Amino acid sequence: MVWGAIATWRMAHEGVVEALRLLEKNGTSGDVTENLIKTVEDYPYYKSVGYGGLPNSEGILEMDAAYMDGDTFKIGAVAGITDVKNPISVARKLSEDKFNSFRVGDGATKYSIIEGFERKNMLTKRAHKIWEKRLEEIRENNLNPYDGHDTVGAVTLDQEGSMTVGTSSSGLFMKKPGRVGDSPLSGSGFYVDSEIGGAAATGLGEDLMKGCLSYEIVRLMGEGETPQAACDKAVYSFHDKLSKRYGKAGAFSLIAMNNKGEWGVATNVEFTFSVGNSKEPPQIFIANKGKNHTTDIQPISQEWLSAYEKRIKAPIE
Amino acid sequence: MVWGAIATWRMAHEGVVEALRLLEKNGTSGDVTENLIKTVEDYPYYKSVGYGGLPNSEGILEMDAAYMDGDTFKIGAVAGITDVKNPISVARKLSEDKFNSFRVGDGATKYSIIEGFERKNMLTKRAHKIWEKRLEEIRENNLNPYDGHDTVGAVTLDQEGSMTVGTSSSGLFMKKPGRVGDSPLSGSGFYVDSEIGGAAATGLGEDLMKGCLSYEIVRLMGEGETPQAACDKAVYSFHDKLSKRYGKAGAFSLIAMNNKGEWGVATNVEFTFSVGNSKEPPQIFIANKGKNHTTDIQPISQEWLSAYEKRIKAPIE
Repeated sequence: MVWGAIATWRMAHEGVVEALRLLEKNGTSGDVTENLIKTVEDYPYYKSVGYGGLPNSEGILEMDAAYMDGDTFKIGAVAGITDVKNPISVARKLSEDKFNSFRVGDGATKYSIIEGFERKNMLTKRAHKIWEKRLEEIRENNLNPYDGHDTVGAVTLDQEGSMTVGTSSSGLFMKKPGRVGDSPLSGSGFYVDSEIGGAAATGLGEDLMKGCLSYEIVRLMGEGETPQAACDKAVYSFHDKLSKRYGKAGAFSLIAMNNKGEWGVATNVEFTFSVGNSKEPPQIFIANKGKNHTTDIQPISQEWLSAYEKRIKAPIE
Repeated sequence: MVWGAIATWRMAHEGVVEALRLLEKNGTSGDVTENLIKTVEDYPYYKSVGYGGLPNSEGILEMDAAYMDGDTFKIGAVAGITDVKNPISVARKLSEDKFNSFRVGDGATKYSIIEGFERKNMLTKRAHKIWEKRLEEIRENNLNPYDGHDTVGAVTLDQEGSMTVGTSSSGLFMKKPGRVGDSPLSGSGFYVDSEIGGAAATGLGEDLMKGCLSYEIVRLMGEGETPQAACDKAVYSFHDKLSKRYGKAGAFSLIAMNNKGEWGVATNVEFTFSVGNSKEPPQIFIANKGKNHTTDIQPISQEWLSAYEKRIKAPIE
């Protein structure tokens, strides 16, 4: 029996640890993925997902999330949803519907209210303070306002061989109202087929949707590539193509796991992630683009972790 | 020098005729695609796109549109936008932005206002009447309300070898507020690479986004498949897979054109489309699923056209 879980960014680690504990006890991939993403959504110091996430240019926190079931291809997604505690749970619930399974804006929020999902003012004082400070910086220094777009994306495999993927994000910091990135978009932000494997993305959504990389990675795994080879092939060839054709490639990072619990990642920027399976205990790694379309992956250092902890909790002046 | 245009449904024919005229006079693919889609958006008797489109379950007409440039992979998209005359033009304008290029709901509408796009009450008396009648039918007969989702999707190739794709739709009739289909979603509703070709979809968006068929068709053409072979391979294998794994496949139809102006379509439902290129004059065809993963394509009959004309203009009781 094999199982496994992989998720984007150091912020997902506690969720991955818990996911592996649940998978070992025969938890279902759907429950485990939802639970993993909720852990990240609930934590106030992660400023790009759920509670504590950063608001848009008007000061409103709009969130995107998606859920996909690799057995049936059921997809549920929300974009621009507001004041709901766990967008991932709304997305998962929507995946049960044959119609209207992707809802945006007020329609998404309305659905979550009617269905009884927990309401919560998701904008923390801290996030509001960061937003105010940023507004000032932009005014003073004539800065490009867009920065930070760390989606949590997770792929899990359970002991029955079922796989699911989930994503959740408050999107690009200082985004315009109603801006949607790749996170709720099938093929770009996520894709999973339990007979093959799954993938999820984080990075500049506007560029990720130009490449459909999550779909492409799953497809390559379906042709027999390992998750690592599939990630390397898809991500670096697209990075090169986009650089040539569009002039520049934004930051993006992809994670993948196949239905044997093997995993891979590729990235064009420094990227942390957490992964574990029935053989390997959960661990945080740091990845960078290597030479010749490969990825350099190293265990995270204690120094990095301490600096991170300090950074995310630093007082906002 | 070769050029060509292909678009979904009989409703696109007048736009395709004009597109070919413009392409012959060296019009750019971007202008031609936008113009083609606008022709469909502007015509009041097409009830699934733009002016005259059918409203959602609350009686509000919400529209989706997207535009992609195959030279640069630039994408612009809107979903759930209201009261703007030409959603495709808003999408095209958004494709020029590096950030915030996919906008939904009020944020999308707000953008169109700020950018000075023409406002228009897009809900015609006729569409409102059809909506009222449908509400009554649903009440009386306990019907599944969802029906009709005919997106206009178009791919064009200009004499310089540039390709673009555009889509526009008022979405599933009686959809819930904020429901989004495949039309604004890259890879599912559309995809184009000028070095290969382009594809666009129409049908049940909830199922189309399970398969990323537009991306897959372009990818297969990139491996050397003809547009027809690429459509057949992608669409029918996905139809079979979805039927097996999800239990049922909704209606969907895909069109494609490569960078030589060759074209193809595949569909699991009766499907009309219009196509022409530098060698073939614009013509309407009717396609059906054939045997062994092939597509049966016939020129449209005069009888069919007359019945269609009568149907779309029939009085609403």
